[in-house]
Amino acid sequence: MSETKSVEIINFGDELLVGIRDNAHLTYLGGELAKLGLSVQRARIITDEREEIVRAFHEAWSRSDLVITTGGLGPTSDDLTRETIAEALGAELVFDPTIEQSIRKRFAALGYEMADHHLSQCYRFKDGIVLKNARGTAPGLVHRQKGKLLVLLPGPTQELRPMFEHKVIPLLQAEGYLSSQPAYLQMRTCGLGESAVEERLQPLQNRQEDLQIAYCVHYGIVDVRFSSRSGHLSADSVEILAHQARELMEENFVCFGDCSLAEAVQRELRALDRTLGVAESCTGGLLSDAFTNIPGASKSFVGGIVCYTNDVKVAQLGVPESLLAQHGAVSAECAIAMASGVAERLSADYGLSITGFAGPGGGDQENPVGTIHIGYHSPVGIWSQTVRYTGGRLDVKTRAVNAALDWMRRNLRKYKVEEFLSCNAPD
Amino acid sequence: MSETKSVEIINFGDELLVGIRDNAHLTYLGGELAKLGLSVQRARIITDEREEIVRAFHEAWSRSDLVITTGGLGPTSDDLTRETIAEALGAELVFDPTIEQSIRKRFAALGYEMADHHLSQCYRFKDGIVLKNARGTAPGLVHRQKGKLLVLLPGPTQELRPMFEHKVIPLLQAEGYLSSQPAYLQMRTCGLGESAVEERLQPLQNRQEDLQIAYCVHYGIVDVRFSSRSGHLSADSVEILAHQARELMEENFVCFGDCSLAEAVQRELRALDRTLGVAESCTGGLLSDAFTNIPGASKSFVGGIVCYTNDVKVAQLGVPESLLAQHGAVSAECAIAMASGVAERLSADYGLSITGFAGPGGGDQENPVGTIHIGYHSPVGIWSQTVRYTGGRLDVKTRAVNAALDWMRRNLRKYKVEEFLSCNAPD
Repeated sequence: MSETKSVEIINFGDELLVGIRDNAHLTYLGGELAKLGLSVQRARIITDEREEIVRAFHEAWSRSDLVITTGGLGPTSDDLTRETIAEALGAELVFDPTIEQSIRKRFAALGYEMADHHLSQCYRFKDGIVLKNARGTAPGLVHRQKGKLLVLLPGPTQELRPMFEHKVIPLLQAEGYLSSQPAYLQMRTCGLGESAVEERLQPLQNRQEDLQIAYCVHYGIVDVRFSSRSGHLSADSVEILAHQARELMEENFVCFGDCSLAEAVQRELRALDRTLGVAESCTGGLLSDAFTNIPGASKSFVGGIVCYTNDVKVAQLGVPESLLAQHGAVSAECAIAMASGVAERLSADYGLSITGFAGPGGGDQENPVGTIHIGYHSPVGIWSQTVRYTGGRLDVKTRAVNAALDWMRRNLRKYKVEEFLSCNAPD
Repeated sequence: MSETKSVEIINFGDELLVGIRDNAHLTYLGGELAKLGLSVQRARIITDEREEIVRAFHEAWSRSDLVITTGGLGPTSDDLTRETIAEALGAELVFDPTIEQSIRKRFAALGYEMADHHLSQCYRFKDGIVLKNARGTAPGLVHRQKGKLLVLLPGPTQELRPMFEHKVIPLLQAEGYLSSQPAYLQMRTCGLGESAVEERLQPLQNRQEDLQIAYCVHYGIVDVRFSSRSGHLSADSVEILAHQARELMEENFVCFGDCSLAEAVQRELRALDRTLGVAESCTGGLLSDAFTNIPGASKSFVGGIVCYTNDVKVAQLGVPESLLAQHGAVSAECAIAMASGVAERLSADYGLSITGFAGPGGGDQENPVGTIHIGYHSPVGIWSQTVRYTGGRLDVKTRAVNAALDWMRRNLRKYKVEEFLSCNAPD
């Protein structure tokens, strides 16, 4: 059913066209719909001008079964979407006193009077559906015409997302837009480049041509999505194939789904009931941040030390001054001292550290810009690893954090038995 | 000249439509062009299918003076853009041996042979321009037809951006697409909501209707862009008005341009020749990260401590156990102890701290989820501040970091004279 439905998204907003803001609405809606088996075929971003709206809307409506718009429902005179689209469709808008009531209530609760310009938000399509806005004034609007569906959503993210999740998805389900099967199965890998992953999975692809394999690379992570090219492969078959793919990926497999590398590490630590502290120089807090983005991280992540100067490395992590004098702060030796130091100082079982030159300044012949040393302190051993990246400062920081997390993940899995024994030895 | 030029961007790539990746190309190109006075009027994102490409391209070409495409120039059979657009234009592609040579050279330098499928990348528009790709194989292509300009750019970010900066901008300049005046002047503010900023600037708007004022809000920051609505206001007049706007914003003014709040703090610290250490609980490294995103941050930023557990707060920051028992870790008292503790432990002149409940778990009656306490330790005094946010964990973290940075910025400016005197007193 869902394979034949054609979906288009129209985002209104100058700020998306002049570099002020990323179009996160498209990423969110496209991602959520894809999970539900509905692929967005095309999207367009236009300014909030009458002529543009009419033209874009006609083009979209003529070739799509479902059109979702975002933005343009605010109370100001700039926000013409509702009226202009109704006009383009030849559909009638009617004033809905229940919308007015709910906006008045909202303002009253905040201690304000509702201004007159909010009355423009009280119109809905005649015979259309109103999607209540739990977090703002403008309701979402739905209109059906000739078997097609139009959904207008408000622009603010915190209004759009709950409305989409709680109102639009059930509506699409009820209208038969969504299949009951998961659309694809995602495998996350780290450690191999896209073409190397593709090469590993080639035998699988050769065996089953109906298997569609799509790749996406981000900062050292390669996500692989498995689905049925023609719709003939069942979800079970896709799952079996995905598990064969997992075998082929060996230790480069991270997870099914989209858990972060920090979550993968956190899970292993939780299983061992052990704790981690981190020490960072050039990544300046980004490694800590990756852990603290996980709700409940404090069960295994105790904290971190950002040692941006040598003094802090010495005083807070116990890195010997002589080591710094001999090897420098950007060295495998310093990375190891940082990892062991942070584990000891924060009383953690594991220590993970990063030191390097993120650029644009710094670097020398031995350690050019982009050189990153990672230190790892664990109950079964202490190691360091060196990686090198090109790219800008923020890119290098993100890659360095991913490399450190992936390396720790590998070590935790590799030494699982030893770690388990060491963890359960009497302290 | 540039006001009348109409620009459209076409991004090719399924991954932009199914939630795998944000459309950073549009944000980048839109932003860079806007700085140069050329506004993108519309953009569309489509899949790499022949029929889609033809339709989208015809629609775009018929109504725009400049069309820029991204992606679809790779060597695989999926990448049809070049051929399909040439067909749609009725333009001829010719094989260019100099492109082949440069691709062969690139591969040779990496120690590889060039595969045959790369030959598809060696075609250019007859009488068209080739934009050399310094970071990859596919060159950019330019085609002129009936006074219109078509620019095809490769998809990978690290190839697209230098090519745009070094090849496309000079080309647009030469072709008269860019005006010689800056397009707008941006003022960054923090501390007031969008409507409050608008209200403050109303007198200015009333005095000069030709002044166009546009707003963009992100996590507590409100950016204001001033430009000439009709083109009649000179750049000098816009600048004078922007400086009047600055006066109206009082201490909520952060900077002209787009320096980050951390940069604003860093500048003040540099002027005083003083140092800062930070301590964070719920923001888990994001505050440190904000500073270390600034090249050369180590001149004033010494480091940070992420104290995700009470033990770390006690051991690393010297927060008294009795204080934690009495007030809890999420309290103004703890924030102050953290700020003073980190300044002392890291031997920094200033300490800035954040503790709170970022959610979704945690929180109590007194400190519900979203409650953030900020501590500030300075040579002229020690204070705390409490803020509350709604939203998801990552939103709350970002807002908390911005609130802490903005508050420090204000304090540094408010006590400038005292700080200066204190800093220059004998130690």
